This record gives sequence, structure tokens and C-alpha cells, in this order.
Amino acid sequence: MSDYTLFFDPMSRAVIAQWAFAEVGVEPELVQVDWEAKPGALYDANSMGKVPTIIHHHRGHDHVVTEAAAICHYLAEFEAPALLPSPEERANYFRWLFFTAGPLEAAITNTSMGWTPQDARQEATVGFGTLERAADALDKHLQRHDYVCGDRFTMADVYVGSQVGWGLFFGTLPKRDSFKAYAERMEGREAYQKTMGALGGQEDA
Amino acid sequence: MSDYTLFFDPMSRAVIAQWAFAEVGVEPELVQVDWEAKPGALYDANSMGKVPTIIHHHRGHDHVVTEAAAICHYLAEFEAPALLPSPEERANYFRWLFFTAGPLEAAITNTSMGWTPQDARQEATVGFGTLERAADALDKHLQRHDYVCGDRFTMADVYVGSQVGWGLFFGTLPKRDSFKAYAERMEGREAYQKTMGALGGQEDA
Repeated sequence: MSDYTLFFDPMSRAVIAQWAFAEVGVEPELVQVDWEAKPGALYDANSMGKVPTIIHHHRGHDHVVTEAAAICHYLAEFEAPALLPSPEERANYFRWLFFTAGPLEAAITNTSMGWTPQDARQEATVGFGTLERAADALDKHLQRHDYVCGDRFTMADVYVGSQVGWGLFFGTLPKRDSFKAYAERMEGREAYQKTMGALGGQEDA
Repeated sequence: MSDYTLFFDPMSRAVIAQWAFAEVGVEPELVQVDWEAKPGALYDANSMGKVPTIIHHHRGHDHVVTEAAAICHYLAEFEAPALLPSPEERANYFRWLFFTAGPLEAAITNTSMGWTPQDARQEATVGFGTLERAADALDKHLQRHDYVCGDRFTMADVYVGSQVGWGLFFGTLPKRDSFKAYAERMEGREAYQKTMGALGGQEDA
């Protein structure tokens, strides 16, 4: 039995967790989630009923982790310390992980829903300002660095790379040369191709 | 000179970072940010011009960290390992840190702006579902646990506690008994009283 259970739907953000599992070389037990009849075990673990949700079966206890970014980082902590940041890389790692999971995610989602700040006061309230400014911040970083932490891949790239890749694919993130080059670096990874790549293929079809 | 610079405004989320600094026992150099004329050094560090933004002057390098939740965790990593989670606490620590910085923050902000999902499809798109359901998820956890990680305070409580405390204070988070009891536990901390408590006092006046 695997140490991990992953509640999964191939057409959802659960694929980000699947990519993270592939990067750390661990095969979780997949529980397919039917959106019309979600399993009770999913609601027991996460009252929001969202995927990805994982359960870590660890030394006789079941630990639940939700939120794609948290799952990525958690898996690196337990299964792949080499994908965690060095002390000198921590600032970029946590800055961009939380920036992408917070303001950038909100900017992308809200803009796609048509919910955009109408004046400077609203822009200050929402935290992300505008989608363009949030995209500028990450663009500025990726113009100068190949990866979130500089010149090597870390677990932060799984989450940030997923957001950038999907944002470009679905047209929800402004197009920038740095995003395109970064997405291509991510697509080159074997673990990406096995997981996220499969989704892209489905969408293309 | 302090190892840290904190771009600061007492009427902003920068106070969360100030609470985190107080918990780890480090005094940052404060740079007051005038909203009408933000310092160039802030934009150099963070093109979004947001506070809190910190600079860690570390072994001859300047490391920038933005996003309140990232700053809290970063400070614990460098300055107070005792406030980091044990392996058994990691799931709750990262789950609720990212949940609060992502879906809960978005639910609170969007609801206060009047941007609320109109149907089940929109609820699924926004990630937080509804503010009530997001509040339910955290409520369920805090009904059974005094702190994010169970029975002891960790750095995750600084960020989650700030969101809960402010949400109750400003009426932007649904009222729950568990939130009130949790907020009171946070208010009992000396580091809270020196930083967040001062803001509450100003607002009351």
C-alpha cells in the first residue's frame, strides 16, 4: 500500500499534485473523484470536497494536506529534500510560492470571472492590484532567472510552473516571453510529461 | 544594523510581519511607507509596491520576501526553528497556511467587494466555493484544536490568527465560536499585544 492517497480528477488541479508525486518518485494510491457523487472519504478529509487532497499515512496516523501549493511543498519535505530550497534560495522559494498561490491565483481567477478592480482604492484592497501588474512582478523575476530559485529546479517550480503553463494554455495569464520560455523548460521535464503533459494533450484533442 | 529591513505602514498587513518579528525576537529596521510617495527602494524590492515587504541582509546578499504568510514562515526558518512544525505537524501547518493565504483570503476579499459566485459552476471555479464554506472548513479544525498544529503555537498561527482576528474585527469573516476563542488565545500573546494589539486600539479609538 502506498504511504499516500491522492483524491484525483484528471481534468483538475489534482494534476499539479500528480506532477509533484512524479518529481519525488512516489506513486500515490489514486482515488478517482466523480464530481456528481464525490466520495464520503474526500469530505471526511476536506469538508470543501476539493481536489487535490492527499492523505499521508505516516507512522500510524493519517495526515491530510489540501491546497496544491501546500501539497507540493509537503511532498518535498518528506520525500525529496533536494527539491527544497537552500538557505540562500528560501526567499525566492517561499516568496513566489505564496505570491502565485495568493495574489496571482486571485488575479487570474477574478479576471476570468470579470471581477476587476475599478479604481486605485479597489486595486489596493484586492492585494493583486491588477492582473497585468501581478504578471509584471513574476515576469521581472523570470526574465532574470531560469527557475524560481535561480538556476536550478526546486519544488516551487512545480506549482509556479503549473500556473504559468495553464495560464498560457487557457489564455488566462498575459503572454510574456519569459513565461513562454519558463513553461517550455517545465515541459521538458520527464515528470511533467507523464502528468501535466497528458492533460495538455487531452485539451488539444 | 538589523539583519532585516521591513517596509511598513501601521494601518496595513505589514503589522502581521511586525507580529512575526516580535515572536522570533528580532527587531527589523522599519522603513515607513507613505502611500502618496512610496520609496523607490520598495519598488526596487517589490514591483507591486506592497507592504509587508522585507529584505534579509544575509551573508553579503539582500534577499527579498513578499507576501505576509511567506514572511512569517521565512522568519521562523531563520530565526525560530521552534516555531516550525514537527514532521507530524507539517500537514496542518502548511495546509492551513496556504488555505488561509489562498482560498480564505480570496473569499474574504471578494465577498467584501461584492464579487460572489452566482452558481455551482462559478463556485467550483473560484476555489473557495463560498465564504461560508471556506469559514466552515477552518471552523471545523479550530473546534477541535486550540492552534493550527494542535495543542501548541507555531508560526502558522501568526498568519492564520491575523486573518481570523481581523476578519472578526472588521466583520468580514463569518462569526463562529471557535474563531472568537482562537482570536482570544492569540490576543493573549505578548508579541501580539505589542504589534497587532496596537492596531486594534487605534481602530477602536
